[in-house]
Amino acid sequence: MKMLTLARDLVRRKARERSGLFVAEGVRAVEELLRSDLTLRGALTCDLLDRTPRGTEVSAALAGRGVEVLRVTEADFLTACDTESPQGVLAIAEVPVRTLDSLPAVSRYLVLDGIQDPGNVGTLLRTAAALGVGATVALPGTVDLWNAKVVRSAVGMQFTHPTVASSLEAFTDFLKAQRIALWGADAGGAPVGSRTPAAIAVAAGRIALAVGNEGAGLTPGVRGACDTLVGIPMAEGAESLNVAVAAGILLHALRPVT
Amino acid sequence: MKMLTLARDLVRRKARERSGLFVAEGVRAVEELLRSDLTLRGALTCDLLDRTPRGTEVSAALAGRGVEVLRVTEADFLTACDTESPQGVLAIAEVPVRTLDSLPAVSRYLVLDGIQDPGNVGTLLRTAAALGVGATVALPGTVDLWNAKVVRSAVGMQFTHPTVASSLEAFTDFLKAQRIALWGADAGGAPVGSRTPAAIAVAAGRIALAVGNEGAGLTPGVRGACDTLVGIPMAEGAESLNVAVAAGILLHALRPVT
Repeated sequence: MKMLTLARDLVRRKARERSGLFVAEGVRAVEELLRSDLTLRGALTCDLLDRTPRGTEVSAALAGRGVEVLRVTEADFLTACDTESPQGVLAIAEVPVRTLDSLPAVSRYLVLDGIQDPGNVGTLLRTAAALGVGATVALPGTVDLWNAKVVRSAVGMQFTHPTVASSLEAFTDFLKAQRIALWGADAGGAPVGSRTPAAIAVAAGRIALAVGNEGAGLTPGVRGACDTLVGIPMAEGAESLNVAVAAGILLHALRPVT
Repeated sequence: MKMLTLARDLVRRKARERSGLFVAEGVRAVEELLRSDLTLRGALTCDLLDRTPRGTEVSAALAGRGVEVLRVTEADFLTACDTESPQGVLAIAEVPVRTLDSLPAVSRYLVLDGIQDPGNVGTLLRTAAALGVGATVALPGTVDLWNAKVVRSAVGMQFTHPTVASSLEAFTDFLKAQRIALWGADAGGAPVGSRTPAAIAVAAGRIALAVGNEGAGLTPGVRGACDTLVGIPMAEGAESLNVAVAAGILLHALRPVT
């Protein structure tokens, strides 16, 4: 029963940080995990998994890869789940160890500034990966990127999309050393999306786009560190966009010209 | 206790359709409801509401507007709630009666084609309203727009943003009569976002943008009715964007030139 205890324990952030392990729940997430380069330490399954052909295939794939699989009762399985609709499978894998300096040298970075909602963070990672952003940096106040709800919302994208948590100080040092401009998303920022030659020339450089909490916006420290504030013109009476929607619009508008 | 029974009943779609009433839960939604033109029929509150100054203000605002407020026990209140973190207030209001012909003549419409997730639908309505879309049309297979979870995710935007449910047949008739082009979001569609003079001329017309279910995409009927399919170029290995993020990017890229 050691693996069951471990899975239960990994619901807590501290346990994930101490062990360097995380849990991916559900068929889709485990499929993506098997497709990635991450190291699997084991898996838990229960009868719920046998109800679909896709579930059976995941079972076989885990066995084929030599992953240690513990079959438990549905009741025990549910005690280790952090998500709403359990599908009878979860895998334990190693959090990839990344530092700012080990991030790939890419043209676009996404920066999460104090974003607490795990569903939003997962959707942000999925959006960044889909739009060709090379890496995502989580600043203090952001939910742990290896939280089970984040992993589920990111539908496996973070297994290949590089992410790192950093202090603001270390991150601004990195930006300076790498000559990366920090752009902040702000309701009052300059509208993006113009594809004039001048705008294209500016966007040709390396950019890190910072997005903040939906209610509070960017933290004062990040706002102060920004080279530019950009925004999305909104209709009268509309207060705000969902943070993942706003990031999607800005990242698409700021995409490198190909 | 009649209002408590009514609120409980309105959790079901059929009860909402029969009565023409819906429930808005939480402080933010009720605040937005009070700000809108919609007709309130009553409200339920419990002690949970008195824990914040904002809650107390909502109480006072309901009383000031002459809304019938029933104070119930927390246990009773919870039996009428459909959302996760109840804040001790819900209001019952009339669903605005709208038909296709009563929609405002605007330059952009959003069309929901079989979108079942209420959180996504609420975020889609919020996104449409924020980006200046004039109205949203829900085609068959889409979750009821007055579901409590949709209302919560839309953070009150749908109280002023016109919405209507329609059959595909009635909607395509409307598009033809109004000379509105139907554009469909599709992974294989032409990339949007170019602001060349030609693209601007095309986008100067009236456009209804249809988005489909994340997994299945547009239904065959809607796909067949589209004048154009548009898409968002994605990075290799990325399967899809969240539907609200995709709609946000497309609606922003297709925004009327001002």
